[in-house]
Amino acid sequence: MVRQLVQLNRMGDGTVYLQITRGPAPRSHLFPKETKPTLIGYCTSLSRPLQLQTNGMTAVTIPDIRWLQCDIKSLNLLPNTLAKQEAADAGAEEAILHRDGIVTECSASNLMMVRNGIIHTHPANHLILHGITREIVLRLAAEEGITIIEEPFHLGDLRTADELFITSTTVEIASIVEVDGYVIGGGIPGPLTRKLQQLFESKIQSTT
Amino acid sequence: MVRQLVQLNRMGDGTVYLQITRGPAPRSHLFPKETKPTLIGYCTSLSRPLQLQTNGMTAVTIPDIRWLQCDIKSLNLLPNTLAKQEAADAGAEEAILHRDGIVTECSASNLMMVRNGIIHTHPANHLILHGITREIVLRLAAEEGITIIEEPFHLGDLRTADELFITSTTVEIASIVEVDGYVIGGGIPGPLTRKLQQLFESKIQSTT
Repeated sequence: MVRQLVQLNRMGDGTVYLQITRGPAPRSHLFPKETKPTLIGYCTSLSRPLQLQTNGMTAVTIPDIRWLQCDIKSLNLLPNTLAKQEAADAGAEEAILHRDGIVTECSASNLMMVRNGIIHTHPANHLILHGITREIVLRLAAEEGITIIEEPFHLGDLRTADELFITSTTVEIASIVEVDGYVIGGGIPGPLTRKLQQLFESKIQSTT
Repeated sequence: MVRQLVQLNRMGDGTVYLQITRGPAPRSHLFPKETKPTLIGYCTSLSRPLQLQTNGMTAVTIPDIRWLQCDIKSLNLLPNTLAKQEAADAGAEEAILHRDGIVTECSASNLMMVRNGIIHTHPANHLILHGITREIVLRLAAEEGITIIEEPFHLGDLRTADELFITSTTVEIASIVEVDGYVIGGGIPGPLTRKLQQLFESKIQSTT
């Protein structure tokens, strides 16, 4: 279906969006019993955010007030949109979420912190969405022999980071060079981030 | 608009449903800048649930995994629907939610516990939806000279309750006569619940 969408729309660079529901039914909290699922798919032309990947982006930290099943990908994204908008209102491009000081992820991306050559990121449990790009990047890093520690870390650790970067489907890999106005890694993407961007690029080129 | 909907549809007993959005815009976490809000309203004929009000209903307790802004009425109801369905799967009619043992409310209604003639209910903060029926019932109770304690209480307190009842727009006031298989108040709606049902009924009759 994805292949078909891309062909029918003669897509170059862009995104394919898929959405599935239980199907139409009268409004009720109980699941409908005999509905046919509705599957919606569409694609949108979109340039890859190369400038963002080169320059990095800014972020602010915001309390993570989401539910306790963030590993479910659903359209119940009100807290994510509120966080993203709060970041934009503060002049930043992404919101780094924390639950009582524990850094979880961002409003629409996963977060990785590099310190002494080691990647730290929140474990893939119920408190974050296990992004596909996250998984691919961790695999590429592991293949490169980079140590990965999937354990919760604190807000305060962000300022001690050598590098910070996010992963997401549309952004791919991009540095966060400023958090709450504090400059990280000299304000430019660090060597490990750039290395992973190169590996990711190679992977894209080799599969298209 | 509500009056008009009711007149146009020649409604007897039923519900009027209103929904407002920021308006149509391309999918993005950021709020759209220049959209006109979409307001949708419709009504549905619905008999008042008199049998439920007379006989009471059963409930099971389920962890409250919702976000930390439950006072916002929105369509991000996935945790509520999951809880309601889990209750139904367990053969019960409602889910009593608790956050680490603190009873908050139900999947689609507010919960009140009666003990020694006093009404206990969770305070109207960010952890519950401040239902209109909740507010009206508390006002009726106060006018009747009943003491109301709006403070968090524990799961264990439920078993010591003389009466338990829920309030919601469609259910109005209904007893919970069984929680996790444990019978409350002899399995029938208690005197204070019935008193409030009468007062609520009088209020309906006097305003229609």
